[in-house]
Amino acid sequence: MSNSENNYSLAADRVMSRIETLASFSALESGVLRAFLTPEHKAAHQQLAVWMAEAGLETWQDAAGNQWGRKVSANPDAQSLILGSHSDTVVDAGKYDGTLGVIMAIEALDALRETELPYHVDVVAFADEEGTRFNSTLLGSSAVAGKWDDQWLSVCDADGVSMGEAFQQFGLDPEQVKTAACQSQNVLGYLEVHIEQGPLLESENLPVGVVTAIAGAKRYICQVNGLAGHAGTVPIHLRQDAFCATAEMVLAIESFAKQHKIVATVGRCDIANSAVNVIPGTVEFSIDIRSQDQAQLEFASVELIGQLQVIAKKRNVAFANDLIYQAQAVPCHPRITQRWADIVTEVTGQEAKHLPSGAGHDAMVMATLTDIGMLFIRCERGISHNPLENVLSDDVAVGLECLVKMVEKMANNA
Amino acid sequence: MSNSENNYSLAADRVMSRIETLASFSALESGVLRAFLTPEHKAAHQQLAVWMAEAGLETWQDAAGNQWGRKVSANPDAQSLILGSHSDTVVDAGKYDGTLGVIMAIEALDALRETELPYHVDVVAFADEEGTRFNSTLLGSSAVAGKWDDQWLSVCDADGVSMGEAFQQFGLDPEQVKTAACQSQNVLGYLEVHIEQGPLLESENLPVGVVTAIAGAKRYICQVNGLAGHAGTVPIHLRQDAFCATAEMVLAIESFAKQHKIVATVGRCDIANSAVNVIPGTVEFSIDIRSQDQAQLEFASVELIGQLQVIAKKRNVAFANDLIYQAQAVPCHPRITQRWADIVTEVTGQEAKHLPSGAGHDAMVMATLTDIGMLFIRCERGISHNPLENVLSDDVAVGLECLVKMVEKMANNA
Repeated sequence: MSNSENNYSLAADRVMSRIETLASFSALESGVLRAFLTPEHKAAHQQLAVWMAEAGLETWQDAAGNQWGRKVSANPDAQSLILGSHSDTVVDAGKYDGTLGVIMAIEALDALRETELPYHVDVVAFADEEGTRFNSTLLGSSAVAGKWDDQWLSVCDADGVSMGEAFQQFGLDPEQVKTAACQSQNVLGYLEVHIEQGPLLESENLPVGVVTAIAGAKRYICQVNGLAGHAGTVPIHLRQDAFCATAEMVLAIESFAKQHKIVATVGRCDIANSAVNVIPGTVEFSIDIRSQDQAQLEFASVELIGQLQVIAKKRNVAFANDLIYQAQAVPCHPRITQRWADIVTEVTGQEAKHLPSGAGHDAMVMATLTDIGMLFIRCERGISHNPLENVLSDDVAVGLECLVKMVEKMANNA
Repeated sequence: MSNSENNYSLAADRVMSRIETLASFSALESGVLRAFLTPEHKAAHQQLAVWMAEAGLETWQDAAGNQWGRKVSANPDAQSLILGSHSDTVVDAGKYDGTLGVIMAIEALDALRETELPYHVDVVAFADEEGTRFNSTLLGSSAVAGKWDDQWLSVCDADGVSMGEAFQQFGLDPEQVKTAACQSQNVLGYLEVHIEQGPLLESENLPVGVVTAIAGAKRYICQVNGLAGHAGTVPIHLRQDAFCATAEMVLAIESFAKQHKIVATVGRCDIANSAVNVIPGTVEFSIDIRSQDQAQLEFASVELIGQLQVIAKKRNVAFANDLIYQAQAVPCHPRITQRWADIVTEVTGQEAKHLPSGAGHDAMVMATLTDIGMLFIRCERGISHNPLENVLSDDVAVGLECLVKMVEKMANNA
């Protein structure tokens, strides 16, 4: 093992230990829950600020509650390269989602403590990505990217506390949130390291992967209307079974996704007034389609809905669909992606795996402000948003080495 | 129109009018609900007794609350031919299910008022077939067939009233219910006219059909266990989507039923912890398989479950099935069935349609006591257990004529 490998290994161990420490800032006695603007969230940020300061960073909290640390460049007018992820969690969360990217960024800057760079490097812990408390996601990065909407302040949590009140209780002035915005011309780029939250890297036995884009998504609620009937008395050839029609649609969706190398999921399905002895008359189901390529997503959704309409017609059932949500695909910057790939090959000796992110990330919003790039760390069995979330220290070491090299070379990408 | 046709047409009109009258005995202000041992049920039986008496029948209520009327034979020791169906209903019921068979039987005996027969002919309105109140079906015919179980008396309705208390409130001694049993040697046979509750006769434009058997049924709850995951991050080829596996099973069930000319229905399906953006990990669904042929039912269920296991294996998901209910197929007596067919051809000038009953009927239980036969009356769009239940007066006239001829000729079938 080379000296630098050994250093990254030790640094990764420290990251793993800090992950455990940060997991203790939780609203749950057993398990992790750290929601936006809560006391445990404040305490976690204070801990992060301590580690940032120990890494030689200048620290501050912005008006949106995001925690920052800066490796200050000799040139005070230099642009800033932002490294970050989020510090909030879902309910009964894993320890790595978001947190890993923040702690690795601090560790990377600690490793670069003696290296003079021609730009500031900021670490940011975004205070809300998951939307656990106010059911509205990506609040922290939205404020930084200048996308904050003051109407959000009146949204209430489950206890009836408005976001504005929560800011005040956190010690922040809700009228000032917008001042957390960074100016585009001052930012060099945004890099995020995150656990994959999927099984692809593990299935190919790779420690890290280069994210090509954050997938766009479209979500539909579909309704199939056939004719309910008595399970004993209606012969199969006279049925308009809404659930059989749905089953054919589900398989069509699966095979369409396979064929077009996208993902599509039927996650919800409800048979109205269902009973063991009643032929389903009405079925409602959801479709979630995602692609890293917005044009493909548009094409795929039209094409797929068309296929479902054909199935409905063939089976003599009515079909309706309602687009309930959509998010644009956000490509990572090609030059940053290429540089990640070169560095991954250099560090691992293997060709870099390129993969899209199916999940949303702060980088999506930061892309409206600056060029973005993401690196995924393998996670066990692809499990996330679950206490079973796990990563290997060795993979963190690889990721850290990649991140350090990336920060050193980012000037070339600007 | 011949004179006798004209008579049946008038008689059918009276049946239709009495159907409306009986529908007014209901617990609902709007809609029909007549549950076992309720005041409205008692009033309906009193009305039936009036009509029975007007048709020249001797009337009585048995110890189980069933209402009887007898066309008495000159020979007091003669066997009795029983015509019947049930007078209770489901919640928000149609007007014809059960009731039609009772009122048509009274009408048939009215038409045979002057005809001396070598056997008694009884009309029975079974007091409980649907099981609406005590969630236990076929109580009236079970008592008559000697299948009463005194343990049922302790079952309570939704208001906590036990069946025993309900008998007392109805004016009956719960300890005497078993005395309602008929002796097999005293019974010549049991004939039931009932609406089809399915769309087959309508689809073939036939007023009546001859029932070959009451289908046996097997019901399963199946569980498919795959792996839940993030709808965005798990590529299709790495998924163990329990709902896609279920969809393939549902289509296999449908195509198996078509191929084997049985009916099979997936009426319930629940995805555990379902969400738009989560790949289904666990799915539970029901299967209801029916066949008029018990041997085929046994074969089909084994074969079908085997096919589902193959699908599960291919998709790398776990599959479990639990048989939660089964009922034996009950054939109608072949000679009675043949006689119905001959009479239907004679009356309609068309070849008789033979069809199984997919729904359960009092005849199932009466088959344990005596030979049974059933005639189905076409109903609109196959709709039943619904206020939209409807039959044509012309079809009732055809059915009545068949029933009258059948009663006259039953001695030949004994």
